[in-house]
Amino acid sequence: MSYFEDNRDRYLEELKAFLRIPSISTLSEHAADIRRASEFVRAGLEKAGLERAELIEGDGNPLVYGQWLGAPGKPTVLFYGHYDVQPPDPLEEWTSPPFEPELRGEDIFARGASDDKGQLWILVKAVEGLLATRGSLPVNVRFLIEGEEETGGEHIEAFVASGDPRTKADAAVICDTEMFAPNLPTICVGLRGIVYGELHVRGAEQDLHSGVYGGVAPNPLNAIAEILTALKDRDGHIRIPGFCDKVRPPTAEELEAWKRLPFDEEEYRKKEVRVSELVGEPEYSPLERVWARPTLDCHGITGGFTGEGAKTVIPARATAKISTRLVADQDPEEAEAQLVAAIRAAAPRGVSVEWKTIHRAAPSLVDTGDPFVRAAARALEETFGKPTVFIRSGGSIPIVGVFDQHLRIPSVLMGFGLPDDNLHAPNEKFHLPNFYRGIQAVARYLEVLGG
Amino acid sequence: MSYFEDNRDRYLEELKAFLRIPSISTLSEHAADIRRASEFVRAGLEKAGLERAELIEGDGNPLVYGQWLGAPGKPTVLFYGHYDVQPPDPLEEWTSPPFEPELRGEDIFARGASDDKGQLWILVKAVEGLLATRGSLPVNVRFLIEGEEETGGEHIEAFVASGDPRTKADAAVICDTEMFAPNLPTICVGLRGIVYGELHVRGAEQDLHSGVYGGVAPNPLNAIAEILTALKDRDGHIRIPGFCDKVRPPTAEELEAWKRLPFDEEEYRKKEVRVSELVGEPEYSPLERVWARPTLDCHGITGGFTGEGAKTVIPARATAKISTRLVADQDPEEAEAQLVAAIRAAAPRGVSVEWKTIHRAAPSLVDTGDPFVRAAARALEETFGKPTVFIRSGGSIPIVGVFDQHLRIPSVLMGFGLPDDNLHAPNEKFHLPNFYRGIQAVARYLEVLGG
Repeated sequence: MSYFEDNRDRYLEELKAFLRIPSISTLSEHAADIRRASEFVRAGLEKAGLERAELIEGDGNPLVYGQWLGAPGKPTVLFYGHYDVQPPDPLEEWTSPPFEPELRGEDIFARGASDDKGQLWILVKAVEGLLATRGSLPVNVRFLIEGEEETGGEHIEAFVASGDPRTKADAAVICDTEMFAPNLPTICVGLRGIVYGELHVRGAEQDLHSGVYGGVAPNPLNAIAEILTALKDRDGHIRIPGFCDKVRPPTAEELEAWKRLPFDEEEYRKKEVRVSELVGEPEYSPLERVWARPTLDCHGITGGFTGEGAKTVIPARATAKISTRLVADQDPEEAEAQLVAAIRAAAPRGVSVEWKTIHRAAPSLVDTGDPFVRAAARALEETFGKPTVFIRSGGSIPIVGVFDQHLRIPSVLMGFGLPDDNLHAPNEKFHLPNFYRGIQAVARYLEVLGG
Repeated sequence: MSYFEDNRDRYLEELKAFLRIPSISTLSEHAADIRRASEFVRAGLEKAGLERAELIEGDGNPLVYGQWLGAPGKPTVLFYGHYDVQPPDPLEEWTSPPFEPELRGEDIFARGASDDKGQLWILVKAVEGLLATRGSLPVNVRFLIEGEEETGGEHIEAFVASGDPRTKADAAVICDTEMFAPNLPTICVGLRGIVYGELHVRGAEQDLHSGVYGGVAPNPLNAIAEILTALKDRDGHIRIPGFCDKVRPPTAEELEAWKRLPFDEEEYRKKEVRVSELVGEPEYSPLERVWARPTLDCHGITGGFTGEGAKTVIPARATAKISTRLVADQDPEEAEAQLVAAIRAAAPRGVSVEWKTIHRAAPSLVDTGDPFVRAAARALEETFGKPTVFIRSGGSIPIVGVFDQHLRIPSVLMGFGLPDDNLHAPNEKFHLPNFYRGIQAVARYLEVLGG
């Protein structure tokens, strides 16, 4: 497909323009950037030759829709992606500014490069290329692109739940995951769910002097420490009553396949995670720990004094952002109720606690025998020239659960990111050979599906 | 002494002007305010009639000095106070702005009102009044006022340690503590020491996505929780090996005297500390816990994401500000070494820890039979018309240890603050009747000392 080769420079320039928009959905001051990014995607769909390229307004950031339904009798694929990105902080750790895309070697560095603007653009360009070269698509296609993936995605959930005809499809295709290793075609069949919220702890009615009152005053920061420590032990076992009861262990076959993956634990520790030691439940392998076990992490703590120097304050209030990752078959609402009960039980004397949900998503597991999954494995194998491997991901893509629940369709997670892409961290990047090959693989997928 | 009555309005206006200077020593952007405050005090000493009113420059904020040495054969008293104040945050909890003093009822509200500008001004006005009305003082007096009490006080420590003749005195007098109850003359004979520092915890080389790496990645915030919980148990017992070995218990006589103090535990809980429950070591009374037991408190935690919404980050680094209060006969350096060893032992796998000292101060206990203490008790009794009580304070006044160590002189802690003055917290205030009566009591003290 020389068309795809010939247009690489243009693809890259378009991606750079997309990456320059700081469409950070968790920060309300970027609302205008969110809108610019949604319009950028809409225009891209229109230019690709899709019909009805439009913004769908509602509660939250606009969805972007486009369709091509000229293949009667053929299946309909729903392409999903997101145009919003994570905040870039800590800014000082970026080698180049997060919203000024920079090429270094074969990588493009920018916030959103891999998660998910680069991968979203793969979908748009695949469809554009097929329409430009053949004048039609082998199957029917809808695009449904959201702008709240990093902050809860309530708008798309409501839209999908509404039964709108624009969501009618036989399978979803999502480019928002990674290849297990460079040049190893990969389909992700399992995702963790999540419960993310804020723990608010209140002690005295007012801040207190730690000299005058230290010894009798409850300290909400120390209380957060007590609670976190009660929820998870030093070896990474979650100690929330009932929490792990529904965890479905991987099958023996799956565990065997994982052992055959090109995974070097020492290399993973040193080059990818970059830690002195991999931690967590010692009775499970590292891949099991990130793919098939729940977690509990604190993401940030406020309260008291964090400026320069010393302030001897016992704060009246403190807050911790906490998330737990869930695996099949944990239920997010039940898991959250168990978490909140455990927090209440662990709260030390003298403080009151309150939990505020930020978002929840269900875990998912897809059958590797599904025809849409098998077709994807074939298209990837043909493009990369290697057998496709099936993996899981420790991350959460809430939309997969939403499609499953409301549309009853499988999601094919064909990802082109790499493990060292620094998602959600400074110096996020996307490997450009994967960008170009991804476009061809997605185009090939539609051809395979079209028969 | 009608002079002291007649000049009240002027005293108040001067105090207000002093309180309007935001001389926050922990924030470097207030360096100019620190200088203005030091000059304000110097001018005040000069106006009071002291000789050699001058700034002593050195490493850090200037000291303010003044002297009157016209009473040969009489003792020399060294008056100490500080012109710097704590930061005012959280600003939104102040009823009136912290640096715009406001009178409400008989109280003046402003940052520094009680700690220590109001009390420092008592010393200046007492001397001014005596010189104005008698033309001389009954004893020799030196003032040594610092501007780093809230941030470590290294300059005054170096100056006192240097053996400068301006520090030569028979006793120090410090107005920086509180009365046990309104209208109850009080001398504080014991202070807690402190070790205050920052715990720096490092996990991975870079921030990590909590989905992709949650389960194998060490989380420095969870590690801080582990460490804090290991250092102190749920009942407030410090679990640092050897830490409490040197703690000197109060004498049976002291404990008896404390029981006779007008102390209502329920009122203290509800109206002063304002908590649902007093916490801490259950085998000690609340007064013992704050006066005679060490503590461990966290004052603030940085790392990760604390903005609006959700960011699923496992931070590479996190920091906790931690202090421990010490009691006689704990040694700050030994206690800090024990703390650091316990932190290292408690650090979970996969993280590295580093401790950075911010400041240290020794605890102190003064003999109630000391002649300077007895004279103070008599002056207070005569001014307030009630027997003086001896208490301790849970706070730390590092200079007391410095005077003890380098000058070998006792410190008389004659305080005029009240327990609900909101030191180091929003809505700090000073009770004006104590301000006026304090001036008279200090003047009377000099007369008693002069014989």
